[in-house]
Amino acid sequence: MEFTAKQIADFIGGRVEGDEQAKVNTFAKIEEGKEGAITFLSNPKYTHFIYETKASVVLINDDVVLEHPVTATLIRVPNAYECVAKLMQMYAASLPKKKGVDPLAFISKTAEIGEDVYIGPFTYVGDGVKIGKGSMIYPHVTIYDGCQIGQNVTIHAGAVIGADGFGFAPSQEGYDKIPQMGIVVIEDNVEIGANTCVDRSTMGQTVIHKGVKLDNLIQVAHNCEIGENTVMSAQVGMAGSTKVGAWCMVGGQAGFSGHITIADKTFIGAQSGVISNTKGNGEQLIGAPAIDPKVFFKAQAVMKKLPDMYRELGALRKEIEELKKNK
Amino acid sequence: MEFTAKQIADFIGGRVEGDEQAKVNTFAKIEEGKEGAITFLSNPKYTHFIYETKASVVLINDDVVLEHPVTATLIRVPNAYECVAKLMQMYAASLPKKKGVDPLAFISKTAEIGEDVYIGPFTYVGDGVKIGKGSMIYPHVTIYDGCQIGQNVTIHAGAVIGADGFGFAPSQEGYDKIPQMGIVVIEDNVEIGANTCVDRSTMGQTVIHKGVKLDNLIQVAHNCEIGENTVMSAQVGMAGSTKVGAWCMVGGQAGFSGHITIADKTFIGAQSGVISNTKGNGEQLIGAPAIDPKVFFKAQAVMKKLPDMYRELGALRKEIEELKKNK
Amino acid sequence: MEFTAKQIADFIGGRVEGDEQAKVNTFAKIEEGKEGAITFLSNPKYTHFIYETKASVVLINDDVVLEHPVTATLIRVPNAYECVAKLMQMYAASLPKKKGVDPLAFISKTAEIGEDVYIGPFTYVGDGVKIGKGSMIYPHVTIYDGCQIGQNVTIHAGAVIGADGFGFAPSQEGYDKIPQMGIVVIEDNVEIGANTCVDRSTMGQTVIHKGVKLDNLIQVAHNCEIGENTVMSAQVGMAGSTKVGAWCMVGGQAGFSGHITIADKTFIGAQSGVISNTKGNGEQLIGAPAIDPKVFFKAQAVMKKLPDMYRELGALRKEIEELKKNK
Repeated sequence: MEFTAKQIADFIGGRVEGDEQAKVNTFAKIEEGKEGAITFLSNPKYTHFIYETKASVVLINDDVVLEHPVTATLIRVPNAYECVAKLMQMYAASLPKKKGVDPLAFISKTAEIGEDVYIGPFTYVGDGVKIGKGSMIYPHVTIYDGCQIGQNVTIHAGAVIGADGFGFAPSQEGYDKIPQMGIVVIEDNVEIGANTCVDRSTMGQTVIHKGVKLDNLIQVAHNCEIGENTVMSAQVGMAGSTKVGAWCMVGGQAGFSGHITIADKTFIGAQSGVISNTKGNGEQLIGAPAIDPKVFFKAQAVMKKLPDMYRELGALRKEIEELKKNK
Repeated sequence: MEFTAKQIADFIGGRVEGDEQAKVNTFAKIEEGKEGAITFLSNPKYTHFIYETKASVVLINDDVVLEHPVTATLIRVPNAYECVAKLMQMYAASLPKKKGVDPLAFISKTAEIGEDVYIGPFTYVGDGVKIGKGSMIYPHVTIYDGCQIGQNVTIHAGAVIGADGFGFAPSQEGYDKIPQMGIVVIEDNVEIGANTCVDRSTMGQTVIHKGVKLDNLIQVAHNCEIGENTVMSAQVGMAGSTKVGAWCMVGGQAGFSGHITIADKTFIGAQSGVISNTKGNGEQLIGAPAIDPKVFFKAQAVMKKLPDMYRELGALRKEIEELKKNK
Repeated sequence: MEFTAKQIADFIGGRVEGDEQAKVNTFAKIEEGKEGAITFLSNPKYTHFIYETKASVVLINDDVVLEHPVTATLIRVPNAYECVAKLMQMYAASLPKKKGVDPLAFISKTAEIGEDVYIGPFTYVGDGVKIGKGSMIYPHVTIYDGCQIGQNVTIHAGAVIGADGFGFAPSQEGYDKIPQMGIVVIEDNVEIGANTCVDRSTMGQTVIHKGVKLDNLIQVAHNCEIGENTVMSAQVGMAGSTKVGAWCMVGGQAGFSGHITIADKTFIGAQSGVISNTKGNGEQLIGAPAIDPKVFFKAQAVMKKLPDMYRELGALRKEIEELKKNK
């Protein structure tokens, strides 16, 4: 498939600066552009690459003023990043999609698999599992008995859905297992990253609501609930029974204590430790325990001066004692 | 299976308040109770749910005083949480248990598998591995050559037992691999969570002692040792050769430096970083580096005021200079 | 295979103290030494074990002065740890190596597998994947379409190479997936730990350069690049488009923000959070946000005194007001 700069500009409503007949047949990062590639400039940090890129066409925001001439043909658009995403989506949609249940998958006889589902080799689908239409389950996924997967869900390799929640009752001799009799429910349009774990609930359901996106290596404990369209970066951990609201964003390696509730549209910084309920929509939190980012970063800046402050405190104390004596 | 409130009360030694003939056939969380379900009230935060639950029967502590009438039948017991756990264990024990080696598992000819073991599809059991009787190895587990698994061990999907420890010797050109020639020994009654990794030792054994419970996505490095009945939450990481004592509890995402020893009954908070030996039984630690929780939380509370403190220090300095001048 | 102390000493250029004919046929840690084992003393913390070890032969540094007689035969060498590593490498090289593609692996017809490659059961090798000669791919690895693996690469069980990067564009109704059309390139002599994830790039390549060693449960996001011979401990997380230089060492559970660049030979402590570019070769960083370790540890030491400092500040304020009044 090959397109000219003009064809692309017409399709996305952009304006060509340079050779309208410049041809492209692939995508590239601006620093790796080569002949025949279309690329984009969105992050101002990368502006210098536009003068040296070998890409044939560059999508660029209307308002970027270039200081030197460029050899690439430009397509001016209001939002270059959005446009390249749109082009990639269009291109990806034109590619053949993986489909069907691979003969090397294990599918329980009592599982129900929807239409147009892809299930990769070595994926395990337990008893009573339901998978909605259009979902893509990559190789090596494990879906324990009874879990329910919605439509257009994507689950990447190695993810484990529905393993036992971590529940034990202490006894004299050790710990007795508390049976984990609930399930996991994953609603429509969810994406779950590689090697991420979502545990079944003790009773009832662990629920991942529609549109949620979970990155790799995340832990969602038993009885948790994640609201619609919430996004979590890699290695986040949620302890048991915690509920995160809708449209939240959670940075990588952040952790949540158990039995807490996070309001909608909460933004939680990477590596934070959230240990209590949050209230406000739109709240931002960072640190462990997590606090207002402005307070956090100011305090962190002063942290480095702590030893000096400690010494200064001692000096002031001495001087005051001196002053008091000489009064 | 259906039971009356009276039958259950007799079985667990409780006292019925309400309809002795109320029938239940399933478990539910109190906030999701429905007709025919038995639930429990243990966490005082959830007390308000008892007035609106649709569950038929609620297990409740003897000492809880209710302020309004409830429609559910109550069973009064000394410890509702323990009782529901016991009922669930009894119920789970009555269900058919997965058993046998799935034909889609890979079992080395030199592996020894005990009686009544379950091994799921796509699980890999290497040369010379031993698995004790009654153990349940879920799908997609990898057990490398020579590792030894005790009796009644549960290993969840995707766990990796016995991969090479992370040992390399620097050279001029890069790093040379140090062969990892030891094994992993997992004793009886251990539970290992999904996608957790326990590395084989360089020489000798990495040992998980009996009754240990490891949650998901945990890293146990080569030559580590975890004492009896210690419990670790998800995403904990142990660096090489570290020994954690018996009956410890470790919160999620905590980390341990290598070559340190943690005393029995140590309680380590989530996200802590433990970098040195600990002494006392019953010690509590939190933070990174980990310290006494009382000190930690007090310091964290003051943290937010650090910028103010810094300004105040400067102000005091000026005022003292002024006082000294005017003396 | 059995060797005498003299044979070993001759081979590694050491000097025997004790019985030159002492025979060994296995390796052991010094605290677990038994008859017929060779062990080593390298960490001074373990010196006391040499007086009680039952090992037949102990490799020990030339400069260690022993205070009591020992029963084991000693081999004196300049660096005991290096020598034992060398012996283990020699021994490991003499053992039969796993080789060949297991019939239970899934290999796409369009994949290219080099000579002397081992691919374990249940490993998935997608379309267009290339694996260089001598590489060892353990069971349960997933290599997505198009990814390229160099020569003598080791990938441990459960690792996922080339899952989609975490890229979504917000819309009114939720998030639209940004297709991840790039690949992962893993160069020669890389080792990748169990359940580690390396995501494919949005366009272009996520690159792990030659000689890199990644421990278990690490997350490498899309478009990242890791320089030659860099070593990362378990559970490290890298956000998208971050570049880590060559010969860096990264402690366990550390995290990197996206779109930053880390200089060569940077040493990053465990659990650090690196949020901006670093400059200097040989720089050391720890903490979150990561700072100079000297500053960090001094500040942490003072941290505990923060509540006292806060009280003292208030006291000083009062005394100064008093002094000002009485002036």
